[in-house]
Amino acid sequence: MTSDIVPDIVPDIVISRLPWYLQALNQMAKEGMHTVSSKMLAERVGSTAAQIRKDLSYFGGFGKQGTGYSIYILIDQLQQILNLDRIWRVAIVGAGDLGRALARYQGFANRGIDVVLIFDNHPNVVGKKVGSITVRHVDTMVDSILELGIKMAILTVPGDAAQSTAECLVMAGVKAILNYTPQTLKLPADVHVQNIDPVLQLQRMMYYLGNNQ
Amino acid sequence: MTSDIVPDIVPDIVISRLPWYLQALNQMAKEGMHTVSSKMLAERVGSTAAQIRKDLSYFGGFGKQGTGYSIYILIDQLQQILNLDRIWRVAIVGAGDLGRALARYQGFANRGIDVVLIFDNHPNVVGKKVGSITVRHVDTMVDSILELGIKMAILTVPGDAAQSTAECLVMAGVKAILNYTPQTLKLPADVHVQNIDPVLQLQRMMYYLGNNQ
Repeated sequence: MTSDIVPDIVPDIVISRLPWYLQALNQMAKEGMHTVSSKMLAERVGSTAAQIRKDLSYFGGFGKQGTGYSIYILIDQLQQILNLDRIWRVAIVGAGDLGRALARYQGFANRGIDVVLIFDNHPNVVGKKVGSITVRHVDTMVDSILELGIKMAILTVPGDAAQSTAECLVMAGVKAILNYTPQTLKLPADVHVQNIDPVLQLQRMMYYLGNNQ
Repeated sequence: MTSDIVPDIVPDIVISRLPWYLQALNQMAKEGMHTVSSKMLAERVGSTAAQIRKDLSYFGGFGKQGTGYSIYILIDQLQQILNLDRIWRVAIVGAGDLGRALARYQGFANRGIDVVLIFDNHPNVVGKKVGSITVRHVDTMVDSILELGIKMAILTVPGDAAQSTAECLVMAGVKAILNYTPQTLKLPADVHVQNIDPVLQLQRMMYYLGNNQ
């Protein structure tokens, strides 16, 4: 189904924008809209109409000149391209404040993500419930993940445990890691890593604040 | 001091990479290294030597051909460019799981960020301590932020409160918001917003996992 609309090579920066477009389109659908121009979508996501048309052109033409895009068709196509037409099971490693907050995060369920495993190594939290999931000991991580065939993990361990834990995840067959630790992970090229570090995002904005403070 | 090395217009994508470079350089300094080539730095951050040289060239030449960069000079310059040669006080709005986790986050203190205010509207948390800070009622937010002259805030309120809370922050003089809500904020152009949404980052990786699951 998907293969006929996904070309071989799309720049990663284009891929990174598709979830934004999808989110804005879902919001528009909720508001009762049926069609959207690239200009309207651009306004929602803070981009330009030209950028959006160029990004979408990698996947063929979705809209007719002048009439805009059907929101529902565009949502459907983006979901197929991003492989969101299924539920992705995810493991969280590290059941500290952040890991627990993510395990309880309401925004996953209706956007295709199902947190099914949580691991930690601290006796105070192993065996405890976080939401509906019992925290397992990290020693059982590789086996549990292999058994369920999980490919995505969220890493919220302390920085000094990040690299070794990530290597275990790769051994267990994980191919995508959302890395909340401040460590840059060195992993095989076929493992995808996205880093979320609030400090780096704040520092980026400090540039613009200049001598404002 | 800074003005002589910061040109007027640097692409935002270049700015977004500087905190990464700085983080890798700090790590190298910790490891006892004194000089670094653009190739070595590129390996650390998963980039290319050409990209790094081009990015740094916006701010003048920091290194000599063939001998690489002095790590300490480069750290010092990047800190000046990013305005990290001071402490930035930050307010967190929303003292739920995520807000509390961020308030206690160990990675802020030694990277120039000082969380000094936390707000919520729920009677169960207002008045309670999170780390060393007492949660204040969000009704006092504008006054407190104005009084302290705070320019940066972290937004961890529920999505349906995001836009109105962000508008209050702007009224209070905040110029940079790290937005953890799934809402796209519509704010004046001089207010900088960075969005952290784990779902968007996970969805981006799902593209590459394809039919792997």
